[in-house]
Amino acid sequence: MEIQIKLVFAVSAALFSVTAAYFLWAYKKPFNSAFLVSFITVISYTLMLEGSLVSVGAGGGEVYATRWLFYGLSCSLLMYEIARFLKKSQSETAFLMFLTVLVMGIGAAAAYFEGWYKIGFFVLSSLAYILLVYPLLTSVSPHRNAIAKYLLLGWTGFPLAFLLAPDGFGIITAATAAILYLLLDIFTKLIFYFDLRQKTEAGIA
Amino acid sequence: MEIQIKLVFAVSAALFSVTAAYFLWAYKKPFNSAFLVSFITVISYTLMLEGSLVSVGAGGGEVYATRWLFYGLSCSLLMYEIARFLKKSQSETAFLMFLTVLVMGIGAAAAYFEGWYKIGFFVLSSLAYILLVYPLLTSVSPHRNAIAKYLLLGWTGFPLAFLLAPDGFGIITAATAAILYLLLDIFTKLIFYFDLRQKTEAGIA
Amino acid sequence: MEIQIKLVFAVSAALFSVTAAYFLWAYKKPFNSAFLVSFITVISYTLMLEGSLVSVGAGGGEVYATRWLFYGLSCSLLMYEIARFLKKSQSETAFLMFLTVLVMGIGAAAAYFEGWYKIGFFVLSSLAYILLVYPLLTSVSPHRNAIAKYLLLGWTGFPLAFLLAPDGFGIITAATAAILYLLLDIFTKLIFYFDLRQKTEAGIA
Repeated sequence: MEIQIKLVFAVSAALFSVTAAYFLWAYKKPFNSAFLVSFITVISYTLMLEGSLVSVGAGGGEVYATRWLFYGLSCSLLMYEIARFLKKSQSETAFLMFLTVLVMGIGAAAAYFEGWYKIGFFVLSSLAYILLVYPLLTSVSPHRNAIAKYLLLGWTGFPLAFLLAPDGFGIITAATAAILYLLLDIFTKLIFYFDLRQKTEAGIA
Repeated sequence: MEIQIKLVFAVSAALFSVTAAYFLWAYKKPFNSAFLVSFITVISYTLMLEGSLVSVGAGGGEVYATRWLFYGLSCSLLMYEIARFLKKSQSETAFLMFLTVLVMGIGAAAAYFEGWYKIGFFVLSSLAYILLVYPLLTSVSPHRNAIAKYLLLGWTGFPLAFLLAPDGFGIITAATAAILYLLLDIFTKLIFYFDLRQKTEAGIA
Repeated sequence: MEIQIKLVFAVSAALFSVTAAYFLWAYKKPFNSAFLVSFITVISYTLMLEGSLVSVGAGGGEVYATRWLFYGLSCSLLMYEIARFLKKSQSETAFLMFLTVLVMGIGAAAAYFEGWYKIGFFVLSSLAYILLVYPLLTSVSPHRNAIAKYLLLGWTGFPLAFLLAPDGFGIITAATAAILYLLLDIFTKLIFYFDLRQKTEAGIA
């Protein structure tokens, strides 16, 4: 692993350690998903930094398939908050969370395998992702636009970064991909919670 | 992997892709388990077709242990529908779903390991399976017989196929086993939903 | 694997098989967690006895990282019972169960990896553990002291045994560690249920 990638992962782990501590102190909720999401992200980055579970993509770049498995954990919690914010029913929330885990699990397979199987798993994951975001983007809710911003500019950035990274076609290096993923993580897992909280406190939610 | 097995897996993945699309379109439920079960089955067959996670049994035949892990996901959803159909309580439904995951997880271990451990895990899995189906077969419900048909002719076929396949004693080839499992999948994961739906629409449920 | 360790694992699997059968017969609850915890423990010990997934620690002793993954399953069920006993809300119970799975998952990583990463994962797991037990130990409940006994003398014994075992610094042998873990398992997974049941039947709970 190059020193630049190690640096990005170390900075990411440190950043999310700080935000985990902050959310733990600031969010006094019985189910503190903001803390859990940051904490899971720390574990994920530490595991990628350790490096034992890294594989090499067809283009020669490094692939960190475990990233997607941990997104399965953290993003299903984010989906729980999104579904609650849009006042989805308990059944639909459970369906969306289940689908989120599948999207990320298949994404890990797409990152790990090569050739036609990579393409096949990427297509399956993308189809599941469309099923996930379509009902959210077409929700009848005053908060639809606020959520659409995070989904379209944030969540959708991940499969695009995937295609560019060694996970996919390997057009950008693993180091550039790591920075891109970090920025998307900051937007969808940190700014999202600060924004959501402000909206909730302002009595909008 | 022989070409016949690849063909069975490819046909299976294609078939369940079609049914996933159908259930998505036809079943307008907030928690669409019929779609999820078919979709999980597509992932499972694609992974088996890819072949990296295949091991070789003691008899020389190919063993696809991941099949059982994905059954843990799909069959716990089937168990949710069965338990609801028989009007089981929320606590008992959770217990039955948890047990289903254990049955299939231990089944994966039985498929993967050899010798006395294979036998030991198979016995543990079978005991858990009996605990799972016994309360269902003895339910006081007008739908008991309808469910019993799927459990006795469908679900129970899987451990029997396991014993004959390279998973177990290796009496039949991996290709024959793949066809047998496919037929059982069609009965328990497709016909089950069509039948259940007819009963529900006819006002029986 | 030494014959002494094999003996401890075989005795453990046999003991928890007996208690699984007992709890199945004696506890007539729709969600029978006492049975599930014993049954999961049987699977865990059988897998450790099989030995394929054993790794060797830095000190040369054997490390059974899968032990901690199965604790993730069994201890989240124990946490469910503890949270109910202390009358925690559904949201807080879900949070505590999720955190229990993380504590044990990170624990498996701490057992498996070496050097600074072992220390890092151990610290992360310990921090999550403190977040888990602190709200329980400071609960306002007549049962706080009864639960505190199991947490402080039982649950907390596991990370201490971890540090002494080849999982951690390797001060004691894998065989001694296996006995220590077995005693802690008996206290937290068997005596706990007998005690809890007596309290419940005596009308204290």
